[in-house]
Amino acid sequence: MGFARQMITEDKFLGGQLVLMQPRDGYRAGVDPVFLAASVAAHAGETVLDLGCGTGAAGLCLATRVEGLKVTGIERQPDYADLAARNAFANGLDMRVVIADLANLPPELREESFDHVIMNPPYHLRDRSTTSDDAGREGALFEETPLATWVDVATRRLKPRGYMTLIQKAERLPEVLKAMDDRLGSVLVKPLLPREGRAAVLVLVQARKGGRGAFRLAAPLILHDGAEHVGDVESYRREVSAILRDGAHLPLW
Amino acid sequence: MGFARQMITEDKFLGGQLVLMQPRDGYRAGVDPVFLAASVAAHAGETVLDLGCGTGAAGLCLATRVEGLKVTGIERQPDYADLAARNAFANGLDMRVVIADLANLPPELREESFDHVIMNPPYHLRDRSTTSDDAGREGALFEETPLATWVDVATRRLKPRGYMTLIQKAERLPEVLKAMDDRLGSVLVKPLLPREGRAAVLVLVQARKGGRGAFRLAAPLILHDGAEHVGDVESYRREVSAILRDGAHLPLW
Repeated sequence: MGFARQMITEDKFLGGQLVLMQPRDGYRAGVDPVFLAASVAAHAGETVLDLGCGTGAAGLCLATRVEGLKVTGIERQPDYADLAARNAFANGLDMRVVIADLANLPPELREESFDHVIMNPPYHLRDRSTTSDDAGREGALFEETPLATWVDVATRRLKPRGYMTLIQKAERLPEVLKAMDDRLGSVLVKPLLPREGRAAVLVLVQARKGGRGAFRLAAPLILHDGAEHVGDVESYRREVSAILRDGAHLPLW
Repeated sequence: MGFARQMITEDKFLGGQLVLMQPRDGYRAGVDPVFLAASVAAHAGETVLDLGCGTGAAGLCLATRVEGLKVTGIERQPDYADLAARNAFANGLDMRVVIADLANLPPELREESFDHVIMNPPYHLRDRSTTSDDAGREGALFEETPLATWVDVATRRLKPRGYMTLIQKAERLPEVLKAMDDRLGSVLVKPLLPREGRAAVLVLVQARKGGRGAFRLAAPLILHDGAEHVGDVESYRREVSAILRDGAHLPLW
């Protein structure tokens, strides 16, 4: 089990506050799980379930920002789960990692519930894209478990009044909303726009178990300044750099 | 049938290009049907159905911007339908007005199909708000026909490849999306934000009958400059003024 040492890179997140081992050729976390973690208003002592945690990017970013969380990661692919557990240890963070398919959770997890469930489900439907050479990467990028199952499992694992937060491609927002049933309310969507005047590429979606608030479409988060990408210099807006480099919170509302 | 003369006001739209008689105390069109009309990319010779046309604001704004359209308005309340017909005549615009409940269209309309269906369905659910003293205003503001029925009737009345466009409160976007079934595709949502950094108050939603494109969450239209409303001076952004005062097109994409 696990990747060979020479197949692993060590990558800095949150300006180096967090260092993650990731497979060189497999699925590698980008900014998406960082935005996901940044958007969760968790507090010390609360429990967090990171569904499909991969190498742990979202859960560990959140644990870095908010001290005293009890984070559980669930990952179907054993070599990724192994890296997640090693990443937690190496960064001195408290994250339990369970190898499990979210559609078939072990009984002890089915008896637990959490203050927060976070997830970054695969973006691509298998029939729309070409397949990858790398099975692990493919498992992370291409949907094997339907999005509706992710939302259902997350809903079940939430405590009453608990929050589900996910990040997904904007084009799948209708699917996400359709997957949310009457157990959830107070749904909030935060669009992520690459630049001012551009369409959303990603959405952060939050819902509350037993919430009764109306749906809200929040102001977009605009990632880059300027109308065009210029040269090879990173041009994140200041509030976005604060999230990605300084580990700042991203208030959804 | 119809309002007494002294109960009618004459109101300028599109910088005075269009003058609408509206009931002084009843439902009065604001900027919403103007945005709706502005967002429709219609061309001369095409047919347009304005579902629940009221006094004709949306259909007549569209007919003002695009010459050579054949517009049909359907309105359940006879006194509003009467004003819509008189408004079309007074402005020299071609709009047929049919008094009908959209949930029970007359047979001749059920045999027609249209290049565009536009609608501005009531925003409020009856059980969430207090009732109005004015029956006509109440009928326009409070939902009697479910939103899903509006979408279904609009879908049926569209030609293949025809476009449905509606404006609705942002908080009801999930309902709108859920009401759209497999007959529709290429769904596009354009959020309308009062100011930069604020949540959406309204959404324009467009879908194509038989469309196969992915869902798109377009860049928001921001209505006002500045972070706060200052004084009593109108502060619409230039591109918004162009829509409201000059009758400019509002490209959704």
